[in-house]
Amino acid sequence: MLDAIQHKINFKTKPLGALGYLETLAEQICVVQNTLCPQLIKPTLLVFAADHGIAQDGVSAYPAEVTAQMVLNFLNGGAAINVFCRQNDITFKVIDAGVNFDFEADPCLIDAKISKGTKSSLTGMAMSQKELNDCFTKANTILLELYASGCNIVGFGEMGIGNTSSASLLMSALCDLPIEDCVGRGTGLDDEQLQRKVDILKAVQKHHRKPQDAKEALCFFGGYEIAQICSAMLTAYEKNMLILVDGFIATAAFLCAYHINPKIKENAIFCHQSDEQGHGRMLTYLDAKPLLNLGLRLGEGTGCALAYPLVRSAVQFVNEMASFESAGVQNKS
Amino acid sequence: MLDAIQHKINFKTKPLGALGYLETLAEQICVVQNTLCPQLIKPTLLVFAADHGIAQDGVSAYPAEVTAQMVLNFLNGGAAINVFCRQNDITFKVIDAGVNFDFEADPCLIDAKISKGTKSSLTGMAMSQKELNDCFTKANTILLELYASGCNIVGFGEMGIGNTSSASLLMSALCDLPIEDCVGRGTGLDDEQLQRKVDILKAVQKHHRKPQDAKEALCFFGGYEIAQICSAMLTAYEKNMLILVDGFIATAAFLCAYHINPKIKENAIFCHQSDEQGHGRMLTYLDAKPLLNLGLRLGEGTGCALAYPLVRSAVQFVNEMASFESAGVQNKS
Repeated sequence: MLDAIQHKINFKTKPLGALGYLETLAEQICVVQNTLCPQLIKPTLLVFAADHGIAQDGVSAYPAEVTAQMVLNFLNGGAAINVFCRQNDITFKVIDAGVNFDFEADPCLIDAKISKGTKSSLTGMAMSQKELNDCFTKANTILLELYASGCNIVGFGEMGIGNTSSASLLMSALCDLPIEDCVGRGTGLDDEQLQRKVDILKAVQKHHRKPQDAKEALCFFGGYEIAQICSAMLTAYEKNMLILVDGFIATAAFLCAYHINPKIKENAIFCHQSDEQGHGRMLTYLDAKPLLNLGLRLGEGTGCALAYPLVRSAVQFVNEMASFESAGVQNKS
Repeated sequence: MLDAIQHKINFKTKPLGALGYLETLAEQICVVQNTLCPQLIKPTLLVFAADHGIAQDGVSAYPAEVTAQMVLNFLNGGAAINVFCRQNDITFKVIDAGVNFDFEADPCLIDAKISKGTKSSLTGMAMSQKELNDCFTKANTILLELYASGCNIVGFGEMGIGNTSSASLLMSALCDLPIEDCVGRGTGLDDEQLQRKVDILKAVQKHHRKPQDAKEALCFFGGYEIAQICSAMLTAYEKNMLILVDGFIATAAFLCAYHINPKIKENAIFCHQSDEQGHGRMLTYLDAKPLLNLGLRLGEGTGCALAYPLVRSAVQFVNEMASFESAGVQNKS
C-alpha cells in the first residue's frame, strides 16, 4: 500500500515533492487510514478544563477564577477557539475535568469532573491514584462515544489556570531535563514572576521522588485535564483516529501518552510550535515537525483549529488533483 | 484609529499578544481598511502564465510545452491551485500573459497575451519597452475590473517554464546580490543542471548592463507574467486592496513593484517561504515575515491559497471574539 500511496502522490501534476510538508502529511494520513482516498470525518475539538491547586501558590499571572470564567466564555461562543472552530467547520465541546464551579447543563459541555481542582503538588500529590484512574476511565468513555459518532479526526485543547506548571514538571520528569529548560512565561509572567515560578517548581520537585512512569508523574504534578487528554489520545489511537496535537500543555499530555504507548506518534499531527519556551524542546524530544509557527501561546486547541485547513488541503490534493497522465501534462524528462 | 484597533485586539479574552503573528496581521488589515470591523470580500487568485525564450537554453527540468499544458490543467480544475481555491472559497482565474498556445475561450481564462513568449535574454532583451508597457496596461485593466466587482483581497500566482531564471536575474539586479545567491533548483534540477543554470544566467548578466530600475530589469530578463503581476500588484495597492504574495517568482514581481512604489508593502501579506533557495533571502531583503513555512516550491499561488484561512482567522477573531468586559472574564491582575 505504501508504494501505491507514494506513486499516487508523486504522479500528481506538480514537480516531485513540490508540496513539501503537505506531501509528508498526506502520506501519513493515507497510511493511517490504509487508503488511496483519505477522508476527514466529523472533525472535533475537545477542550478539557480543570483547576490546579498550585495556582494558589503564585505561578500564574491570572487568578484561578479565570478557568471557570473562560469555560463560560467557551459555552457562550466568545473565545478564540470558538471563532476558529466555527470558521473551519470543526465541532467543539468542552469537558469539565475538574473546574472549581458548578456549571448548568449545556449541549456543548461534557461533565467528567473529578473534583473541584487538584491539590497543590507543593505539599503532596496533585491527585490520588484513584483520581487518575477516574480521569482515564471518563476520558476513554468520551472518546469511545466520539468514535461511535463517526468522527475520525480529533484535536485536543485545554484550559486551566496554573497548567503550564504541571506541563513543565511533566516535561522535566519525562524528558529528563532541568526544570529551567521547561518553564516559560505562561500567560504572561514578567522576569520576577518567572523566577518565582521556577523557584516554586524546584520546591515541588524537591518534595517528590523522581516519578517512575508517566502515570505516577501525572499523580504527582496533575492536572485532571492533562490526564484526561492523555487518556483520550490513547483511546483515539486505539480507534485509529487522527490526533491533532496543540501547544505546550496538550503536547505534555501527548508526551505522557507517548511514554505509555510510543506507537501513538503514527497518528499524531503536530499543529503548531508555541511561543512558550520549552515547547520547541519538547517537539525536538518527540522528533516532531509542527505545521505552523505563528508565535501563538493561547492554548484552548487554537493551534489545532488553525492548522486544520492545511490537513484538509493535504487530503484534498490526494483526492482531487489530476495526474500527469490524466491531465496530459509531460513529466520531467 | 490605531489606538482603537490595538485596544480592541488587546482586550479580547486572551493573554496580551497570545495570538502571536495573527494579531500583527489583524492590526495590519484593520489599518489598511481603516476600520475596527475588517472584511474580506470576494477573495480572488489570479495566475499569470507565459512562456520564456530562455527555457530553450536548458534552464528547466521540464519542456516549455508544460506551460500551456498546465494552463489547460488549470482550466480543467485539476491543478493544486484549483484544489486549494475550491477548498477555501477563493475565486480562481488564469491570465494568458504570453503562452505559446492558442487557447479556446473559457470563463476562467483572461486573454492578455503579449506574444507567444519572451525572447531569450541570453541574446537580447526578453521584451521590448513597448511590450512592457502593454503588460502594465493590460494587467492594470484586469485589476481595475476585479476591483470594480467588489473584491478587496487578491493573491497572485504564476506558471511559466523557465521563470525561476527571470526571477533570479531580477533578484540579483534589484537586491544587488551575486547570481549564485539567487539561483535555486526550480522544479527539480540536479547538481549538474543547477551549475549549468548558474553558468547560463551569468552569461545573461554579461550580455546586459546593470539595469537602471525595475522596469528596465523586467525588459532585460522578462517575463510577461512577472511584469503583469508587478503591474497588477501596483494597481491593487492604488485601490487599497490586500495583496497576497506567494513564493519565489511572485515575490520577485513584488520586489519590482516595491522598487517602483515602496508603500505597497503596507498592503502586502507574505503567505509562505518557499523551499526555493533565494526566497528566504528575498524575504529578508524585504523585511517580510511569511505566514507559512511548509517547504513548498510549486508556485501557481498555492502558498496564497493555503495561507488564506489564516488571514480569515485574523479577521474573524477581531470581529467575533468576546472582550474581557463583555464575557465577564477577569484580566491579568
